[in-house]
Amino acid sequence: MAVQAESLGNKFKIALLQVSVGADKQANLSLARKKIEEAHANEAKLVMLPECFNCPYDNKCFPEYAEEVPEVGTKLGDFKPGSTVEMLQNAAAEHSLYVVGGSIPEISEGKVYNTSVSVSPTGTIVAKHRKVHLFDIDVPGGIRFMESEVLSAGNSLTTFEVGGMKIGVAICYDVRFPELSLLLSGRGAKLLCIPGAFNMTTGPAHWELLMRARALDNQMYVAACSPARDPDGSYVAWGHSMVCNPWGMVIAEADESEQILYSEIDLERLSEVRQSIPVTKQKRSDLYSVTVSDF
Amino acid sequence: MAVQAESLGNKFKIALLQVSVGADKQANLSLARKKIEEAHANEAKLVMLPECFNCPYDNKCFPEYAEEVPEVGTKLGDFKPGSTVEMLQNAAAEHSLYVVGGSIPEISEGKVYNTSVSVSPTGTIVAKHRKVHLFDIDVPGGIRFMESEVLSAGNSLTTFEVGGMKIGVAICYDVRFPELSLLLSGRGAKLLCIPGAFNMTTGPAHWELLMRARALDNQMYVAACSPARDPDGSYVAWGHSMVCNPWGMVIAEADESEQILYSEIDLERLSEVRQSIPVTKQKRSDLYSVTVSDF
Repeated sequence: MAVQAESLGNKFKIALLQVSVGADKQANLSLARKKIEEAHANEAKLVMLPECFNCPYDNKCFPEYAEEVPEVGTKLGDFKPGSTVEMLQNAAAEHSLYVVGGSIPEISEGKVYNTSVSVSPTGTIVAKHRKVHLFDIDVPGGIRFMESEVLSAGNSLTTFEVGGMKIGVAICYDVRFPELSLLLSGRGAKLLCIPGAFNMTTGPAHWELLMRARALDNQMYVAACSPARDPDGSYVAWGHSMVCNPWGMVIAEADESEQILYSEIDLERLSEVRQSIPVTKQKRSDLYSVTVSDF
Repeated sequence: MAVQAESLGNKFKIALLQVSVGADKQANLSLARKKIEEAHANEAKLVMLPECFNCPYDNKCFPEYAEEVPEVGTKLGDFKPGSTVEMLQNAAAEHSLYVVGGSIPEISEGKVYNTSVSVSPTGTIVAKHRKVHLFDIDVPGGIRFMESEVLSAGNSLTTFEVGGMKIGVAICYDVRFPELSLLLSGRGAKLLCIPGAFNMTTGPAHWELLMRARALDNQMYVAACSPARDPDGSYVAWGHSMVCNPWGMVIAEADESEQILYSEIDLERLSEVRQSIPVTKQKRSDLYSVTVSDF
């Protein structure tokens, strides 16, 4: 569902809030809200939280921490006081900025999802993405994790509109599937927001490569926001939140510690890249296409 | 067309022949043949030449150097004596190895193509790929090249079978289109051979990123063979032939000088990667698919 929104212009500042996440949900929410305020003070127009920012990234925690998440179009004041989503709505409206709300465990009709909500500067829900590809991996000598033991997968692609510009949302493991970003780009996304929490096996091996690849393949900006690393957590996040530009370069990168990463989205630069190496126009749609069945 | 062929086993050595290419076609062919012989002496079972190995990479040269190229299935002795393809057939049969013949300008019914032929150890043509995506780019302050001023594009995907294993072939600019390698991987390719000639603008920016991305996305081996760099050429190639493994790592890389790059293809390692992060099985084919119309 399209929701009208003001343009951010051709250049605007974004902030990736690489927050620490612990077992205390209220502390997680307070920290997120404080960081949104700080990013606003530093003139960010869009802020982004990491995957699972209100709950430890742990199958045992997902059902316990899960909350209901309202549908796109829900306005400020129309959703549960005290909920995580209400906090995001209040923070977005108070500071008049876009919030890509990382992800939280969502409960719906008895199922639990890994869900990202995005909120407009008036506090309206403009996007809701349920992680489409569940993180089930088992690397000998490395990480084992099976989201599907607890979580259910979403069934649709997600974009929202900001003025004339579209922004896509995908969560973490979704980035490994090039089809998804090809489809989001095909729908007009020029910025792809990826809340994610890679780990100490896949982080050093693949985090940067995947973000740069999606940016270059689609000549779009990719912003990937991780939690800060907690060496004592049951799941140790890689950190390294980053922004890649449409030329496939990393233009901003965090280390593993708690911090706010700022970067600039420059739609003129995006147009230049798309003109100089016009792959988006050179696709052989007579020969192949990526099709989707989520309508 | 499938041509029966003996298996190379689960581990085999490949050689990327990063040759210098000049204006003298016969000298180019002699050098290629000499390097095939050297790679054979070093126990390579599959050798690969770069894009445009018999002709300078220059629109002015393509029509002049263009030759006819026979169809898949053509056997040793059934094609023109003295031609580039006959040399490849003779070399493959003499040394009993697979040759992925880089690419050469092909003339067919008045049109010129950028075409790669692959030859079996008996000298039979097992694959013929015409570059599907023509290289038309214009980077301000960087490279400008318009293949479409002279060349026509191919219209199909290319794999060939070696024992039970499939090998895909794509040429240079084809690598920028993730759809192509997704389709080749979907058809079973475990090694993607990419003769290519990136330049001093796109080489440092994108060569490694694209090869690693295609390898990781599809958990396949990617072998990319460039000509050696000639700083005085009209088109200055980046060089840096490389092999990437299914984990997305560069496992062998040349510098810019003339050389043979050796590497090992290990299908057990490929299986391990595909089991540990099973993205090839986790695709949401209920939600999206990449379709092709080249049959």
